[in-house]
Amino acid sequence: MNDIFLRACQGRKTDYTPVWLMRQAGRYMPEYQKIRAKVDFLTLCKTPELATEVTLQPVDILNVDAAILFSDILVPLEPMGMQLEFTEQKGPVFHNPVRTSADVHALRAIDSQADVPYVLQAIRLLKQSLKVPLIGFSGAPFTLATYMIEGGSSKNFLHTKRMMYQSPELFQSLMKLVSGVVTDYLLAQIRSGVDTVQIFDSWVGALSPHDFERFALPYVQEIIRALRASERQVPIIYFAFNSSGMMEQVRKAGADVYGLDWRIEIAKAVDLLDRNHVVQGNLDPCALFGTRETIYAEARRILEGARYAPNHIFNLGHGILPETPVDNAKTMVEAVHEISLKAL
Amino acid sequence: MNDIFLRACQGRKTDYTPVWLMRQAGRYMPEYQKIRAKVDFLTLCKTPELATEVTLQPVDILNVDAAILFSDILVPLEPMGMQLEFTEQKGPVFHNPVRTSADVHALRAIDSQADVPYVLQAIRLLKQSLKVPLIGFSGAPFTLATYMIEGGSSKNFLHTKRMMYQSPELFQSLMKLVSGVVTDYLLAQIRSGVDTVQIFDSWVGALSPHDFERFALPYVQEIIRALRASERQVPIIYFAFNSSGMMEQVRKAGADVYGLDWRIEIAKAVDLLDRNHVVQGNLDPCALFGTRETIYAEARRILEGARYAPNHIFNLGHGILPETPVDNAKTMVEAVHEISLKAL
Repeated sequence: MNDIFLRACQGRKTDYTPVWLMRQAGRYMPEYQKIRAKVDFLTLCKTPELATEVTLQPVDILNVDAAILFSDILVPLEPMGMQLEFTEQKGPVFHNPVRTSADVHALRAIDSQADVPYVLQAIRLLKQSLKVPLIGFSGAPFTLATYMIEGGSSKNFLHTKRMMYQSPELFQSLMKLVSGVVTDYLLAQIRSGVDTVQIFDSWVGALSPHDFERFALPYVQEIIRALRASERQVPIIYFAFNSSGMMEQVRKAGADVYGLDWRIEIAKAVDLLDRNHVVQGNLDPCALFGTRETIYAEARRILEGARYAPNHIFNLGHGILPETPVDNAKTMVEAVHEISLKAL
Repeated sequence: MNDIFLRACQGRKTDYTPVWLMRQAGRYMPEYQKIRAKVDFLTLCKTPELATEVTLQPVDILNVDAAILFSDILVPLEPMGMQLEFTEQKGPVFHNPVRTSADVHALRAIDSQADVPYVLQAIRLLKQSLKVPLIGFSGAPFTLATYMIEGGSSKNFLHTKRMMYQSPELFQSLMKLVSGVVTDYLLAQIRSGVDTVQIFDSWVGALSPHDFERFALPYVQEIIRALRASERQVPIIYFAFNSSGMMEQVRKAGADVYGLDWRIEIAKAVDLLDRNHVVQGNLDPCALFGTRETIYAEARRILEGARYAPNHIFNLGHGILPETPVDNAKTMVEAVHEISLKAL
């Protein structure tokens, strides 16, 4: 078992810098496309054998130091009562967006064992064969709430913010419900064997720091406190996308590792985290459209920037893009391993 | 003449905090819709009498302290050789995206007097009737280049970054050409009578701080240096959207006033600018979907946050949204005037 990723999460020294890629199991990879040609996206998420297969693909092909469970952050919302569909054109769509008090009250908490057994089964299958640590994950409450309220992806999050400002109590009651679901979901994943969990707050960058502290942060803190109180402890990664201007607020989440997008110098982020937290990131996904030389130069720059952190997990600052050449992703992994092995 | 906006730009004390709204002449206003029903968007930009009329509308209706010329940042790209169309569905589209060396060489510099006379004529007309200062503007080179390379709006700026990383010299030659156009365009606006200019870098937040310093900042600096060398001096506002994580880099632009989006506490931005520069911003445009009470509370919070800046121009952190109730925009202007008049 290559446990270097796990050791890095714990802030322990490692021989080299571990690396994985967000969305490393995905559309840029022909092996993934082959399986997706046979089943739709949601079926893939719900079929443990297939989810396991695509989770494993990048581990061998890219030589990354961790695997992330193949699933989608919206999966646990379906049993809450949300009518989920993934469309080719518009991405995820909820046919019953949550806008009123009646909408919120029509939702229910979930029991992950009963409601999303396929996720937990995939974790158990993966733990039988994986030679690297397995990352479980969930969306953070604010990010999940935006999908529920908007009915899908959004540019300006108008409905979400209107509810926040006009009906703060309704918004908070939805957030409370979603937080309970996320907590149950992550605890079930931990019990099933994941080695780490990552909480994705993909849309929290839409908020001002002030609103983040009022409307999003307390729920992340609540979830992390609940995970800390559980019988089995795993490192917790919090990834608040597009939040470079509010690191002072984000660091209050209470996580072990903070994910960074590429919009901040990693050395600055390390300092804002008091050189006290492990950082994960932060290569621009578009850097993988450069040359071998530019990919090596960027890897070197980021590795050097992270040197005063307790440890560093190399990653992209966002999910790998579907158009990415696989060879360039391999080059990135190779560059991180090679450069960090020499330098550390 | 109400010159309070201009005095604030210069860092001089004012009796109250001036306020205007990005896109204050626009679709949220019925008076604007009425004119747009008669002509398409580009015709409106190119007809000085109509552009003047819509520029004036919000000054009276909202009681703002500045007017901004009604136009679009893509207007000066058309005479460079770009085939521009505004579509209802996809927004701006360039039918001949710039991807190769031949594409770049097919473009030409512009002579604003000859190529965009309608913009300069609108400025002269406006100066005859305006009772508040007039803001001229341009897109910044990086932002304009993304539209030219992508052929319109973009999510990931893949083509732009591919050119940056794979053909940096080609990218830089395009940026040099665009910078020359922006300089000529802004100088012509200044000669025609605008009282301030704002440089909009709407997409520069797609870059890492490192890439911003290599690929975008030098061109903004070059333009600002050229404006400083001109016979007539006006205050220069630089608005780098979604750049809260790289204020240390952005402040090197050399502007007088820095625009801020809502993703950073204004007090923190003031400190990052050494309490030495006027700031403009930074209300979340979605805050205008709140109640009278929440709008007043947000105005108060931002006004208090800005109190250690040399001066502050209140604004949204991005353009006003088409769905915004006009009355809420009025409430915001009223709140800023009322609260700052008491407090200062």
